[in-house]
Amino acid sequence: MYRFPIVLLSRHLHRRKLSSTASQPLQLPLSHPIYTIWGSNTGVGKTLVSAGIAASSLLSSSSPVKFHYLKPLQTGFPSDSDSRFVFNKLLQLRNRNNNPRISLSVSNRVLNFSPATTESENEIQHFAGEEGSFSSELVCKTLYAWEEAVSPHLAAEREGFVVKDSAVLETLHKCFSEVSESGVDKERSEVLCIVETAGGVASPGPSGSLQCDLYRPFRIPAILVGDGRLGGISGTISAYESLTLRGYDVVAIIFEDHGLLNEGPLFSYVRNKVPVLVLPPVPKDPSDDLMEWFEGSHYVFNNLKEIMLSAYFERIKKLHEMPSKARDIIWWPFTQHKLVPEGGVMVIDSRCGENFAVFKDQKTEVITPLFDACASWWTQGPDAKMQAELARDMGYTAARFGHVMFPENIHEPALNCAELLLQGVGKGWGSRVYFSDNGSTAIEIALKMAFRKFSVDHGLILDCHEDATNERSTELMVLALQRSYHGDTLGAMEAQAPSSYTGFLQQPWYTGRGLFLSPPSVSMYNNKWSISIPEEFQWENKKLENMTFASRAEIFHRCRDNSELAPVYSSYISKTAVDLIHCEPDIACYGKLMTGGMIPLAATIATDAVFDSFIGDSKLKALLHGHSYSAHAMGCMAAVKSIQWFKDPFSNPNITSEGRLLRELWDDKMVLKISSHSAVERVVVLGTLFALELKAEGDNAGYGSLYARPLLQKLRVDGVYMRPLGNVIYLLCGPCTSPEICNQLLVKLYERLEEFDGFSN
Amino acid sequence: MYRFPIVLLSRHLHRRKLSSTASQPLQLPLSHPIYTIWGSNTGVGKTLVSAGIAASSLLSSSSPVKFHYLKPLQTGFPSDSDSRFVFNKLLQLRNRNNNPRISLSVSNRVLNFSPATTESENEIQHFAGEEGSFSSELVCKTLYAWEEAVSPHLAAEREGFVVKDSAVLETLHKCFSEVSESGVDKERSEVLCIVETAGGVASPGPSGSLQCDLYRPFRIPAILVGDGRLGGISGTISAYESLTLRGYDVVAIIFEDHGLLNEGPLFSYVRNKVPVLVLPPVPKDPSDDLMEWFEGSHYVFNNLKEIMLSAYFERIKKLHEMPSKARDIIWWPFTQHKLVPEGGVMVIDSRCGENFAVFKDQKTEVITPLFDACASWWTQGPDAKMQAELARDMGYTAARFGHVMFPENIHEPALNCAELLLQGVGKGWGSRVYFSDNGSTAIEIALKMAFRKFSVDHGLILDCHEDATNERSTELMVLALQRSYHGDTLGAMEAQAPSSYTGFLQQPWYTGRGLFLSPPSVSMYNNKWSISIPEEFQWENKKLENMTFASRAEIFHRCRDNSELAPVYSSYISKTAVDLIHCEPDIACYGKLMTGGMIPLAATIATDAVFDSFIGDSKLKALLHGHSYSAHAMGCMAAVKSIQWFKDPFSNPNITSEGRLLRELWDDKMVLKISSHSAVERVVVLGTLFALELKAEGDNAGYGSLYARPLLQKLRVDGVYMRPLGNVIYLLCGPCTSPEICNQLLVKLYERLEEFDGFSN
Repeated sequence: MYRFPIVLLSRHLHRRKLSSTASQPLQLPLSHPIYTIWGSNTGVGKTLVSAGIAASSLLSSSSPVKFHYLKPLQTGFPSDSDSRFVFNKLLQLRNRNNNPRISLSVSNRVLNFSPATTESENEIQHFAGEEGSFSSELVCKTLYAWEEAVSPHLAAEREGFVVKDSAVLETLHKCFSEVSESGVDKERSEVLCIVETAGGVASPGPSGSLQCDLYRPFRIPAILVGDGRLGGISGTISAYESLTLRGYDVVAIIFEDHGLLNEGPLFSYVRNKVPVLVLPPVPKDPSDDLMEWFEGSHYVFNNLKEIMLSAYFERIKKLHEMPSKARDIIWWPFTQHKLVPEGGVMVIDSRCGENFAVFKDQKTEVITPLFDACASWWTQGPDAKMQAELARDMGYTAARFGHVMFPENIHEPALNCAELLLQGVGKGWGSRVYFSDNGSTAIEIALKMAFRKFSVDHGLILDCHEDATNERSTELMVLALQRSYHGDTLGAMEAQAPSSYTGFLQQPWYTGRGLFLSPPSVSMYNNKWSISIPEEFQWENKKLENMTFASRAEIFHRCRDNSELAPVYSSYISKTAVDLIHCEPDIACYGKLMTGGMIPLAATIATDAVFDSFIGDSKLKALLHGHSYSAHAMGCMAAVKSIQWFKDPFSNPNITSEGRLLRELWDDKMVLKISSHSAVERVVVLGTLFALELKAEGDNAGYGSLYARPLLQKLRVDGVYMRPLGNVIYLLCGPCTSPEICNQLLVKLYERLEEFDGFSN
Repeated sequence: MYRFPIVLLSRHLHRRKLSSTASQPLQLPLSHPIYTIWGSNTGVGKTLVSAGIAASSLLSSSSPVKFHYLKPLQTGFPSDSDSRFVFNKLLQLRNRNNNPRISLSVSNRVLNFSPATTESENEIQHFAGEEGSFSSELVCKTLYAWEEAVSPHLAAEREGFVVKDSAVLETLHKCFSEVSESGVDKERSEVLCIVETAGGVASPGPSGSLQCDLYRPFRIPAILVGDGRLGGISGTISAYESLTLRGYDVVAIIFEDHGLLNEGPLFSYVRNKVPVLVLPPVPKDPSDDLMEWFEGSHYVFNNLKEIMLSAYFERIKKLHEMPSKARDIIWWPFTQHKLVPEGGVMVIDSRCGENFAVFKDQKTEVITPLFDACASWWTQGPDAKMQAELARDMGYTAARFGHVMFPENIHEPALNCAELLLQGVGKGWGSRVYFSDNGSTAIEIALKMAFRKFSVDHGLILDCHEDATNERSTELMVLALQRSYHGDTLGAMEAQAPSSYTGFLQQPWYTGRGLFLSPPSVSMYNNKWSISIPEEFQWENKKLENMTFASRAEIFHRCRDNSELAPVYSSYISKTAVDLIHCEPDIACYGKLMTGGMIPLAATIATDAVFDSFIGDSKLKALLHGHSYSAHAMGCMAAVKSIQWFKDPFSNPNITSEGRLLRELWDDKMVLKISSHSAVERVVVLGTLFALELKAEGDNAGYGSLYARPLLQKLRVDGVYMRPLGNVIYLLCGPCTSPEICNQLLVKLYERLEEFDGFSN
């Protein structure tokens, strides 16, 4: 592994307290079905639907049911309380239609309320059934209540009762835990929970975050209450799109009939893939408290409940089957399949910002967050907010452009992306941008550019019309670094020194067409930094200047920003490799995080001098290297958004507003402490990377080693997803990750290192 | 160029009439600003905003203005007429606030109306100004009117006045032409046009298509009339998302104040990037016909008008600048920049289905559709409907998954995609799927697989821990076809015969490690098919069977489905290369159209026997070839949607419902006719491809030739975008393209071929 100067390391701008207590992870239990009821417009109908599902579940079941109704946000309280409405409706319906075989308990409670409303709610009613009856239960809860009948963000502000998103989620999480525990009582065969949101899908919560964003970490399946009125098709479809545009699965759409046949266009829109249910019209004069309406709607609610149950069971079934299906048909990269243990396949159900949401079926079934501390192999960067914005941009770009043909054409995302790159990483030296799909192909393009420039400069070019022969007048080589890695395609491989990746077993065509130098290296051990400069290569600018063009170009390929190197990762933001080694390249490659991890795209940037060596009268002199998806609009748009987002102090709190530097993310005290640990050989930190080499000998050392595995498995239990490179492990965060989270990662790592000596490998 | 068996060609299932009259292209003139007024809910406010903008433009201007108000769809007519409302308001406001310097002409007309409504509208009023006054004009038009006050799709059905989407667009297009011609009169300094939609953004039009989909081919910039009421934040945001999810640019949001400060959350949602304007509350008792309200809102409407004008000018400026900026900083693949003529850079403003929307500034500025007849180098496939669905899936997937780490993990899109591939192209032989980024890297992976299998079978494998040396015990070669092309990276290049792409000029490291055989070829000339089988290679199954493993594997790489071959393009749908040559591969690669052209993704499929040769106790024996974006969720989801869509007779009308065959797309009569043309050397058609070699000699022949260029330039004038491969040209459509459109392409090509003899090159 290669290490680089410690420019960023020597600064200690922000010192923060260590903290070893991380907040409880926000898990979604899957032991029972949990659904969110969303509305396409304000209020209308959602609570009727909630009450209808509750009644359908509780009053006609032939086995015990525990039904949870949760209303996280209630405004207009206490005069308005959806939770009380559901509670009351169930009492009324139970009284009309008493089933003596059911002992029913019904409760309603408000957990937190604004100081403006002194009235709380806490009511329980029990109805004993005949002897031998079974016990069912309805638990209604309002999590937060405000007095004024306005949007929660306004009520929260006006009543001085502002609640953070994290608090809402934690309270909800506690309620879910209770739902989960409902199953412990073996008598109960059915447990169901619904969460009714406030207002429309994109109505603000108490912090101002839109509710569809607020609840996203749980990604609870959705029931959408649509609108049967004139204009209701549009409102329903738009609400549906806002939900799916945030990664929610909408399981059913239900709405009140207004005689306008809105179900037709809705059904056609969802292409028969989502059930659309129609409720009878709600009577204008509800003199019987809607009792007849509820009875007349019973079959619809029953249908909805069945849809909810079957979608739930189907999801659980899929989640359980996925690992073994994957083991059967997937061929993972860089993976010895024989070493993947039974049960070792992780199901990623979704991702929210830096966290995977992973399905775990040990003990209880649960979707749990796992911090992506390998940043998906140097590729993941966005936080939750940026991911949501990127998603909207992806939808827009796919709709606006789809596939765009690039040669001799131009489109806005490609032009904007090229401009941003030249104003950023290419500033001061680069003048042309060549797009391709990934770092490896970007390097192949860079090599072709370097070869041509060198050939032109040294008069090696033949007449291009006589060039289709196999004769090679000169053997070109590159100057590169030992232990470097430029990508997996043969051309990129030829530019690296022999290694585990290049033997006959992996790459029978590899010859290694380069001179490979040992680079200087920097690392920390036992509180001290050390720099080692190999004897055979003195890192001097003079020598660099005397090298041939192709050699210099290659040196910079080595420093390219998509390699497995540290400085790189922050280079779209602040210091680039150019800044770090004070030397301008002729060609450089960029990839990985450039698109915020959304989709593959790479760029090779070159000077005009390089570009000019491809100019001539014949097409055969052009750079005949192409990609079907050259400068694809999706990737370019993602890159534009990502580069701008990472750089902007308004969107990325880690950017110092004065300069354009990424603040230090890894706490230096903690780094020193880890470097002194007896299990640690050395440590290096730079930008978003913290890397650590474990002391190891013999088979325990090197790329093929499994030495670090048990350590990383323990860290997964702690909610940290890391991957080993033999006996080297690393922590990587995104450019927007808060230093607090980075510190929690270091603390967890240290705690597990303490145990590590005792692991048997 | 390589040709393949004519299995599909020998069938003539569908004969259709030739037609040489294509419909008028639906252009959007950019000579003057045109905006669409959308509403986040039914009706409320849109017409007030329209009237406000009209008044602001016409009544206080100090120079002549021609203002067009278009209402494409009006229901509830004649009792309701938004066009009449705007007309009347302007008259009222003009009477209250008469500006003697303006001679004003105001008209209102309905162009087409349902038989249920006998009443039409056609009214003009002139107001002469003082002597020397300038003439301004308001032209109000209702394009289609129905009697019943319900959604247009219901009214259309009930009143027997169904209007096709194409008719609405053509009528609108005619109106735009009139807007465009307004500018011919030099006296007028300002022309503005607004199009007011009916209902909400996703309300159905008369055919049932949602209006946001219906108007998409024009992609007119949008003004969104939001909702200031309780719940209005959500409705406004969702409507905004439905518009952007269809590729529209929303230029401003405006809504009526209800005292709830809805602008705060809206402004924060759009991150200050879209102006949000607030109108004073509309009085409940409009006794003065809203005159005071309009006067009080004047400054807001003026502000909105300024925003519309400046966004328009900015767009025009950008479109004009893009070509020269692109020439300065972009490096196009496969392009000799010196040969790109001044003015030869095409600005792609967007794409809708098979058509690019291209900016043309010759004579009049216009956004014009251009059929993508090279299918973006074998990569574009979706029609407009599929593109819209893919866009929603892209938004969903980005929001749900963002970046997902793949090794030892599984997620739903990757598993679904792998399953679909194995049930489709891999059926009967393939059992493992290895994901990568593009065809070239997929081939490199396939080569590594083939080498390993061969080495294991022939006992060439060393102990993997001693493998990191440079020693090569055996030189492996592939058996491949002459004139084949597998991709641009060095490894893929090594498997192709020497060509223009492999000389020292392009690829100094190329050696060509294969035996290259000439394949049989099929083509048509002068109405007759001919098959030529080279002497040195007899295409017999026996020989194939006797080949070594690696050779056989390579033969199938040659037939891979992402190559520049014909059968390929339909192979996700019906006949695969496996079906065509009746021989099962060990390894095969897929890419290009797999994702519907949305983003790069490729898959290498292998048998279990190949997979097993990588199984062992050491990680070093695994296939150490990776991609940061391995099995990225976006690509896998796009592939799942695309493969399913292309195959399904309900979504793709070209699929015969009995079997799973793609119906013939190229009219055989027309193909025969073209093959007999004197300028034509030979022709071949298969699946979605029609290819033609022009008779050419000397420098005019071959890849570097520019011979076909003038022919293709003429075809661009006809709305057909093709690209040459030297003197070979080709027409490619998507799998969903109607045979009628294919025929129009052939007819246009034939007509231009008739002129071609006269072109001087």
